[in-house]
Formats: sequence, structure tokens, C-alpha cells
Amino acid sequence: MKVLSLFLLVLLCGQQSVLSQGQTEIWDRFEVSLKGPETGNPFSDVSLTAEFSNGTEKLTVNGFYDGEGTYKVRFMPQKTGVWKYRTISNSKSLNGKTGTFTCIGPKQNNHGPVQVADTYHFKYTDGKRYYPFGTTLYAWTHQPQSLEELTLATLKNNAFNKVRMCVFPKYYSGVENEPKFYPYEKKSQSAAANGRVKIVWDFSKFNPAFFQHLEKRIDDLKDLGIEADVIIFHPYDKGRWGFDSLGMENDLKYIKYLTARLSSFRNVWWSLANEFDYIKTKPREAWDIYTRAVIAGDPYKHLCSIHNGSVYYDNWKPEFTHVSIQNGSTVEDFGRAVLLRDVFFKPMVYDEVCYEGDLPQRWGHLSGEEMTAAFWQGIVAGTYVTHGETYKNAGDTIFWAKGGKLIGSSPARISFLRKILEEGPGPLQLADPWKDHKTATADSSYYLVYFGKEMQAEWTFSLPGKSGPSEKRNFQVEVIDTWDMTIKKLPEIFEMAKVENYRIFDKRRKSIRLPMKPYLALRITEVSNK
Amino acid sequence: MKVLSLFLLVLLCGQQSVLSQGQTEIWDRFEVSLKGPETGNPFSDVSLTAEFSNGTEKLTVNGFYDGEGTYKVRFMPQKTGVWKYRTISNSKSLNGKTGTFTCIGPKQNNHGPVQVADTYHFKYTDGKRYYPFGTTLYAWTHQPQSLEELTLATLKNNAFNKVRMCVFPKYYSGVENEPKFYPYEKKSQSAAANGRVKIVWDFSKFNPAFFQHLEKRIDDLKDLGIEADVIIFHPYDKGRWGFDSLGMENDLKYIKYLTARLSSFRNVWWSLANEFDYIKTKPREAWDIYTRAVIAGDPYKHLCSIHNGSVYYDNWKPEFTHVSIQNGSTVEDFGRAVLLRDVFFKPMVYDEVCYEGDLPQRWGHLSGEEMTAAFWQGIVAGTYVTHGETYKNAGDTIFWAKGGKLIGSSPARISFLRKILEEGPGPLQLADPWKDHKTATADSSYYLVYFGKEMQAEWTFSLPGKSGPSEKRNFQVEVIDTWDMTIKKLPEIFEMAKVENYRIFDKRRKSIRLPMKPYLALRITEVSNK
Repeated sequence: MKVLSLFLLVLLCGQQSVLSQGQTEIWDRFEVSLKGPETGNPFSDVSLTAEFSNGTEKLTVNGFYDGEGTYKVRFMPQKTGVWKYRTISNSKSLNGKTGTFTCIGPKQNNHGPVQVADTYHFKYTDGKRYYPFGTTLYAWTHQPQSLEELTLATLKNNAFNKVRMCVFPKYYSGVENEPKFYPYEKKSQSAAANGRVKIVWDFSKFNPAFFQHLEKRIDDLKDLGIEADVIIFHPYDKGRWGFDSLGMENDLKYIKYLTARLSSFRNVWWSLANEFDYIKTKPREAWDIYTRAVIAGDPYKHLCSIHNGSVYYDNWKPEFTHVSIQNGSTVEDFGRAVLLRDVFFKPMVYDEVCYEGDLPQRWGHLSGEEMTAAFWQGIVAGTYVTHGETYKNAGDTIFWAKGGKLIGSSPARISFLRKILEEGPGPLQLADPWKDHKTATADSSYYLVYFGKEMQAEWTFSLPGKSGPSEKRNFQVEVIDTWDMTIKKLPEIFEMAKVENYRIFDKRRKSIRLPMKPYLALRITEVSNK
Repeated sequence: MKVLSLFLLVLLCGQQSVLSQGQTEIWDRFEVSLKGPETGNPFSDVSLTAEFSNGTEKLTVNGFYDGEGTYKVRFMPQKTGVWKYRTISNSKSLNGKTGTFTCIGPKQNNHGPVQVADTYHFKYTDGKRYYPFGTTLYAWTHQPQSLEELTLATLKNNAFNKVRMCVFPKYYSGVENEPKFYPYEKKSQSAAANGRVKIVWDFSKFNPAFFQHLEKRIDDLKDLGIEADVIIFHPYDKGRWGFDSLGMENDLKYIKYLTARLSSFRNVWWSLANEFDYIKTKPREAWDIYTRAVIAGDPYKHLCSIHNGSVYYDNWKPEFTHVSIQNGSTVEDFGRAVLLRDVFFKPMVYDEVCYEGDLPQRWGHLSGEEMTAAFWQGIVAGTYVTHGETYKNAGDTIFWAKGGKLIGSSPARISFLRKILEEGPGPLQLADPWKDHKTATADSSYYLVYFGKEMQAEWTFSLPGKSGPSEKRNFQVEVIDTWDMTIKKLPEIFEMAKVENYRIFDKRRKSIRLPMKPYLALRITEVSNK
């Protein structure tokens, strides 16, 4: 992050001319910091935007009050070259400030924001493929520093590249601690009957320290190559703080403030809510208004979705770039994940499919095998799946809740799957989606066949005829043990016959032997003709 | 149908005063017949509408040219009492005609048009439940009279209460004959190279005889208590007649003419297309325009849907009252049908799920068992399924194509299922849709459990806890053999225990014995406490 303090430069230079404020990488963050009014309510009294331009490229971004008389405008350049800006404010001390900076090309590990690609999939802006392998850390940024750092260390050693995380603190079984920071200023504080602290909030004043901390954690994720799927509202408050019951006016102020602060973070995705339908204080109609407010506050159009409890939202609405679904049954068996995907013509992320763990609740005790199989079911159907871990051992923090350590058996297998996918030529889809729910393809030279729990001693080589390889093309088969994480290449070469009854067999109808084990897969790839 | 020839009455009475034209049942058809210009092109030169009013109730309906100088206006009254009308036309002889009739209450077997009820289900307008059990007869109205009458006789002896049928003739394997009637006037006719007749059409002139015949058949269905799911466009033309390639202007004229003729038929449903995406002459964007044209031409707002080939249309659009899906995999196994249903908040009709038959194509050879199971899968998921039969015997007409006789084994079982559903207290839905895909419920006193192909000697009595019966309520169990069509009531009474781990068991954990057979179901109903 590149932070330049304009007011300091102004002080040092003693002049008001246009300042060159150095260099910022494309898709990185340029920040203007200005001194302005501290009296009254700077959050509501002072308006601040800035126009950024680079040739014909022009964007207007919202600024925000960051406390202690400091106002900021953040900008994520999407084009290299010289950018100019000019501020607009109802405060004389903030209005008409100008400057320039040079946007340079990306350095290593900066691929830009993730976008939708090929209808059902994702890419970074620079064209590099992005396959989401997310995990769930709802309240990880509301924990003691040591725990937050342990979480980051855990993430560093695992393959998850997306984290679902709440802005507001969470109050739920397994997460009952007070956070260090609160998003609003306190009006008063007293001891409640239940022994907890009862706080009265001033919802007209944000607490910049809360957001600065959140931002630091989002930047920490960025440094690990992880996207932050930022959950704007959630139902896990239950009257404790009242952050789910601000009323629409305050909700919209919060969205404006949050998007002004975070839109310039390239690894941010917007998740309007977790389990939107369980937030009983917000009627269904309100979500369109909130969604449009997010879009209005984000000039870069980050990925945006809404996540359901029991009832789906209208995921077809154009504001949603992809679909974020809770429903474990979709990836529990063959032939389901593809059904919802094909409705929307958008990427489908099954963001909550129950969790690996040992909680008594049925959503909290998938085995590692089940969690791993859910990922494979999603991937072969051309969809994506999000992990969560809910083991509750003595003294444990439950990864899904507070973060900490991962102790489950699925993360290593999910990492193994991610590697297989990234080694392939591109994103997958079912080759014959209404009839064969096991065979995914990237193109007619690459197939991944997943058997799930089904065991068999012998498998006759066979691919779907639809858009399949032409006669005489040769293929090899690797047997993947998705649980033991082994890949064994078979010596035989299979030569394609003509399509026969919707399938393509080897010309001698060769078959392969398989170990009598569950959770096997086959990687079938073309080899050049002899 | 009540047809009153106004011009005759006018002639007989020798005056222009408002005429009383007798009585018409509610939801039945009132028709005004007028003489008008025969010169020029009456289809395009003459405009005709009529305003009908009954107190504050007012509707404007389109009239149409019916050939030989006769113009008609049809009206379906939806309110009893005296209705007045007045015509509006650019032709003096058709303009300003007035009349009245009395709308009386419905007679037996007139329940009004079918409407959406309870989000996912249907009812007749009078409140009687309607559960669609459809079959497919794409080209049945383009056959010789004897075959059409055989089809009607077959329908009379089966339980299907909806028929999917094309307006335009169909050219496809199994349906290659010329129809008796064509929808347009011929310009010229010659022998084509392939030995068939080559006809040049005048797409500016409809052939009233074609539509009169179609109407007779729709009325025949009405007399059998069958809804006509009228398919407005389809892709089975392939250059033979060109009815799939009229161009948008002619398509819209056709929609206006068709809706003017058929909207007053209470058993009409609109199906914008069969396999809309296979009609390569009409871009995806066009379907919104066509759909709105249908709605504009139908003042009664009949049920309206669009049916897909491989790619779904935007079924969430408000013009579509329900969802009409082709995809056999949805009802092939547990846990699928409900997924698509829950997206749309509309009734879900799986209108094409492959057919019972013996065609070589994979969509044409379901066994009777598979077709029957597909219906059960749909019904327990709170959705509906449509039948089709594709047996091809020597001299056979293939029911799905031309109509004729049904020879399959599923129709009797489908009839058996319809009876079970109609005996129940109301429409079904999965009691616990993400976890238990076998147990449907109407309310906490009625459950239907379907086992599909799974066999078991013993079943422990257990219901989903979600909205389930309270402790101490008593239930009986009937074992249904969905294939042998038997229902056997078990002597035991089961007393409900408290919900335990999301399930409700008998308080002594009683179980039942089951025959080791596939395709069993259980009907579990409350009995009054002793």
C-alpha cells in the first residue's frame, strides 16, 4: 500500500500547485490524505469526493473521514500512465485539492481484481485464471491479535485463496467474546444484567480504528494471495450490539462509508449478507436498495453476491456478478450442482455446504471425506465450493468462527484438488450435463472423471460423445486417489473410436483396473499420435 | 360454447338497439359474429376490438377475421351478471355494435381457468385444486380425423389432464405427413424435387379453417377436463413450411391473431415455444417481445411459460406464471427436482423428462418404471412432471408425435399417483428439503415417503422434525406399491415422540416390515387419539 500524506507534502512544499505524488502500481491503492474539519460530525457534515482522470479515463470516488481531523480519498488505478485528481467538498479546506501520480505496471503477485470470465468462471484482471477455493472465517478479525496472526499463519500454509468474513462482529455459539474494536462510537457503557457490557452506540459516528484494523487484515490476506469475500450484513447479532438493526438510513450510510474505504482494495469481493433471509430486521425488498448502494459506492465494480439462509435471493439480478449459495445438498451427490448453475449464466459458488467438524448440529459435522467429496462434486460440475471447519476441541477456537488452526483432514485434499485444476488447461464443465454427472472436461483433450463413493474393479474407457475427441486421437489415463492424494499414470494408450450411442470408447474397447476404493478420479489427457 | 350471430339477430329484429344475447356461463365463451368487409386484406386492413363491461369490471378484447366476410369477437366473462359490449373498428360496418348478455354461474365441470396457487401449485379459479398430470401430443391436431378421434378416446380413458400441443404442424422423425389444414393461405403450390408438395405462402393471410379446427380440438379437450398447453412456436419445421421463419413482424401478427381467437378458451395455457433455443431463426432477445405480445393479446392472463432445449430461458421474468423445464435428469434421482423449484418461487413443471418408449435416441427409451418413478420424484419434491410415449411399433403413430393409442405401462401408474395426490389434503412439498429427499408433506398430519429403486426389509418409523407433528399424535402407515398399484394399510398405530436430532420417531421406536421390492412408497396419516 502506498500512502502519501498530501497535507504533509503541502506543508513541506509550502505551495498549492499540482503535486506529483510518486508512483502506484496498477490495481494497487493510491491514497490522498487531507486535513479538514474536526468539529461537528465530520461523518455526516462533510462531503468529499475526488475525480481521477487519465486521458479519457475518468472516475469519481468517495472520500471518507478517518478520524482526528484526517480525511482520505483512496483510488485503485486500472490503467497505467499519469493520473490527475481534484477533490470536491463542501468544506473549503478539502475542496479543489489536486495532485497527480504515475500508475506503473504490476509487480509480481499483483494480477488485479478477480472478475467473471467465460460466463461461469473467474479470472484476474491480467488474464491469469482464478479458481476460488474458499474457506469461512466469519469473525476472525474480531479476535485478539495473537489469534488473528495464528489464523494468517494457518492460511499461509494452506491453499485457500478466498475467505468469507464478516465486517460486523458475530455473536453465536462458539463466538461470544467482545471484539477489540467496534464499528461505531460509544455513547455510553454500563454493566448489563447478564454480566456483559451494555453499550449505547452513536450510529452517526463510525469508529475509524475498527475499519483501519479490518483494512489491515484485508491487506494481510492480499499479501497471501487471498480474496476477501466481505460480508456486509449478517444475522448473528441477536440484540447484543444491534448492528443488524440500524435502520435503512444508517445501513445506507454504513454501506457508503464501507465502500469508500474498501473499494480500492483489489482483493475485496462484496457479499451483501450471510443468510440474508435470517436478518429479520431487513425486509426482502431492502436488499435491492442495499445492493444498488454498494454498486454506487464502488466505481471499480468488484465481484458482488448475496448469500442465503433457507430461501434464495433473486440471484439473476444484474447487480450480482456471481451466485453465492448455501445448500449442502447441491454437492452431496451427483447431478445436482449443475442444475442451479445452468439457471443463472453466472459463476456458481456453493459458499456454504455444511462444514467439516464434530458439532452436534447437522450442518457442523461433515467428515473430511464428505467435505472433500463436496469440492470434487462442485468442481466436476463447473461450480465452486467453500470450505469451513467446525471441530470443537477443548480450548479450540473453531476455525469457522474465530480462526486459529486447521485440524481437519479436508484442507490438504482441497489443496491437492486445486493443484490438479490449476495444472489443467482451463475451467471445467460437465461434458454431457444431463446424462453423465461424473465426467468434466476443459476441452476435448482433457477430462476429469470423478467416482465419488462408488467403487468398481474395472472401468471401460469411455468419454461422452458430445464435443468429444475425434476418431484416432490418443489418450492416457491417470488414476487419482483424491483421499490419499496420489496420481498414478497407467501405461496404456487409448485410441478413440467413432461416437457410438452418445459415447466414445477405445477402438478395442479397452478397460482399466481400479483399486476397490472410494473417492477415485481419473485424469484423461490427450497424448500426441505416434 | 355459446355462439350468437349478432348480424342475424340484427337482420331479424330490423333495429340497432342494444340486443340481449342470452346467457353464458362464467368462464365460458361468449361470441359476437359480425359481417364486414371482404375486399382487400381483412386480416391487416380491418381493426376490431370490443369493450366489455359489467359494473366497474371492464375489459377490452381483440376481434379477428374468420373468413367469408365474418368478423368475431370472443369474450370469457369472469364475473356473473349483465355484461354490455361495444365494438370499435376502422370499418363502419363493424364499429359501434353493442349488445348485452347475462353471465350465469358455472355448471358442473366448469371450474374456470387454472391459476397459480400457494406459490408452487395450481388451482382452478373456483378454488378446486388442479394438479397437472400432462402428456405430450405435439402434432395430434394435424392428423386425419379418425386418428384425432382415437386420440381423444385414448385421453378419455386415461388420467392426463394437460396436453402439450403445437399450433403449427410438425416435421420430425415419426411425423412426416402433410396436415389437412395449414395456418396460412397458399399463394401457389408445385411439386418439389423430393416428391413433396412445395407451397408458397401468403403470410399476410391466415387460414381460418386451420384455426377453427384447432379450436374444435381444444374444446374437445375441455370437454374431457384437459388443459391445452398451446405451443406457439417450435423448431420442427426445418424449411418444410417455413412457419418457424416468418420474421418478427409476421410472428407478432400471428400472436395477435392466435390470442384473439384463443384467449377466451378457459383451458388454454400459453407455451411460448417448445425448445425455444433450437429455433435458430429467433434470437434470444426476441422471446421477451413475443412473450409481451402474448400477454398483451390475452386480457385474462392465462398461464404462460416458455420451454427450453439445452439452455434455459429467464424463467424468473414476471410474464411467466410458471416454469416449464426440459431436463430429464431433474427427476431421475433424489434431491434434484427441488433445487430448480426453489429458485423461482413459481410452480415448476418438468415438461420434458424423456419419454416412455423404445426409440434408439436416449430421450426416447425410458422404461415404464423409469417414467413412473420420474413422476413420483417430481411429486414428492412439490413439482410436476409431464408424460410422453415414444413406442414405435409397425404401423404405430407414436403417441408423443401423432397421438393414437397409449401402449406403455406408465399411464396407469400415473393415474394411480394422481388419485393418491387428489385424495390427500393438499399439494406436497419436501418436509426437510436439504436433507430428506424422500419425505413429502401436505401438512403435519399427512406424509408421503417415496423410496424409488431402493429396497429394504425394514423401515424405522421416522418423520422430519421440521414443522412435524407434536408429541403424542398418532399416525397410521399404508404401504403403497407404486408399480403394482396396491395400497396396504398396516394395523399398527405409531405415537410420536419428541423431535430428536431433527427427526420424529415412534415413542417405542417401532419399525415396519417392507416387501423387498423397488418403487414402494408410504402414506403416513394422522389418526385421532384414542
